[in-house]
Amino acid sequence: MNLLIVEPGEMTRSGDVMLTDGRSAHLRTVLKVALGQTVRVGLLDGPFGVGVVTAVGDDGVGLRCSFEPAAPPLPRVDLMLALPRPKVLRRLWAQVAALGVGRIILTNAARVERNYFDTHVLTPACYRPLLLEGLQQARDTRLPAVSVHRQFRRLIEDELDGLSDATLRLVAHPTAAAAAAVLARERPDGRILLAVGPEGGWNDYELTLLQHHGFTRVGMGARTLRTDTACIALLSLVHDAGEVG
Amino acid sequence: MNLLIVEPGEMTRSGDVMLTDGRSAHLRTVLKVALGQTVRVGLLDGPFGVGVVTAVGDDGVGLRCSFEPAAPPLPRVDLMLALPRPKVLRRLWAQVAALGVGRIILTNAARVERNYFDTHVLTPACYRPLLLEGLQQARDTRLPAVSVHRQFRRLIEDELDGLSDATLRLVAHPTAAAAAAVLARERPDGRILLAVGPEGGWNDYELTLLQHHGFTRVGMGARTLRTDTACIALLSLVHDAGEVG
Repeated sequence: MNLLIVEPGEMTRSGDVMLTDGRSAHLRTVLKVALGQTVRVGLLDGPFGVGVVTAVGDDGVGLRCSFEPAAPPLPRVDLMLALPRPKVLRRLWAQVAALGVGRIILTNAARVERNYFDTHVLTPACYRPLLLEGLQQARDTRLPAVSVHRQFRRLIEDELDGLSDATLRLVAHPTAAAAAAVLARERPDGRILLAVGPEGGWNDYELTLLQHHGFTRVGMGARTLRTDTACIALLSLVHDAGEVG
Repeated sequence: MNLLIVEPGEMTRSGDVMLTDGRSAHLRTVLKVALGQTVRVGLLDGPFGVGVVTAVGDDGVGLRCSFEPAAPPLPRVDLMLALPRPKVLRRLWAQVAALGVGRIILTNAARVERNYFDTHVLTPACYRPLLLEGLQQARDTRLPAVSVHRQFRRLIEDELDGLSDATLRLVAHPTAAAAAAVLARERPDGRILLAVGPEGGWNDYELTLLQHHGFTRVGMGARTLRTDTACIALLSLVHDAGEVG
């Protein structure tokens, strides 16, 4: 945990919070905080700040928090992902949040198995703590918005424009020649929507529909990667292209 | 499985092989091959080729293989990784092999827990099938060489030059300003040795020793990633830098 995230509803108006969950255990057993010590904090979906330890005891750790005036910018990437196997998705939540995405759009596709939608991994009770874990690892406060879409065509035709304001839309496709990083570098200011298909890939109908809605196909060289590896790899490439220019 | 890998010892001199393991099951139940059909094959650590189905039955699938004259080049990256938790390492084997590395050098470090060395995840019986899975996913034939080193200083001072011929040595460090992709692009021809530390990072002694042995520190922007995410992200960036120039 490299940043301790506090939620607005947990705090008094003066910025006092009493932590009693895993965060308090982390402060006491890993950071071994003492009264008066300061720790880095972040307000969920808000600014970074500092917390002064006001209490340490068996019933929790108290902090008085103060924050910078402005929140960090939204990550420049939104991720549209064909729903992967629950086991894979469970591993991805924290990693995707750590890499930084504004929104996670989970969608059906021809090669997505229907029963993937019936998993508790798609419930906020499961994924919200994992997203928070990723934010606290990467020192970000921006909780990705999550939406789940069972109808691919309706998502692309009717809903997508309202979900993501990205001006560059990229779809990962193993045989595509264009490189994601090159396209991302050409558009240093805009936000990017990155679509990653199911194991087995998008089918022709899906690729055509995506193309008709502004998606450019991008590849990753000669190698075909598993969905989860491809997600991490492409998010890294797109973020890096934004940072190194 | 996007490439079926055959090992030299499995084949007769005429290129005939009878598969009876998971590969045969994949050919029969996923690809549903028929007599005379061809499938893409690769010779482990050798060239790509084509296999003609010569037998399909309950006892396995027979192929007659022929190969291109030359093997694909060794991946341009070697990975030196402070030994992660067994659970994390188990997940990494296939992903690292899919991304492509010539060699995986696993090392001790001050922040590596000693009992991590006592896991069966470090035995070839565990990792070799996972590496092969990664190669078959990514269509590569080059099995990464693996070595495990309990003494960090001896590894860096005495053994490393013999293990990796990389001319560019990079060590990931969260606060470093240099970007891995930029340095990799400046050295388009050479091989690269990438060092990724333990959760909690390299300590000062380790960073200094690495620096004295030619390692340049590279960062990944403001975010601190988990070891496994950082591995995948950095391997992607370095490979992409080699491909898009």
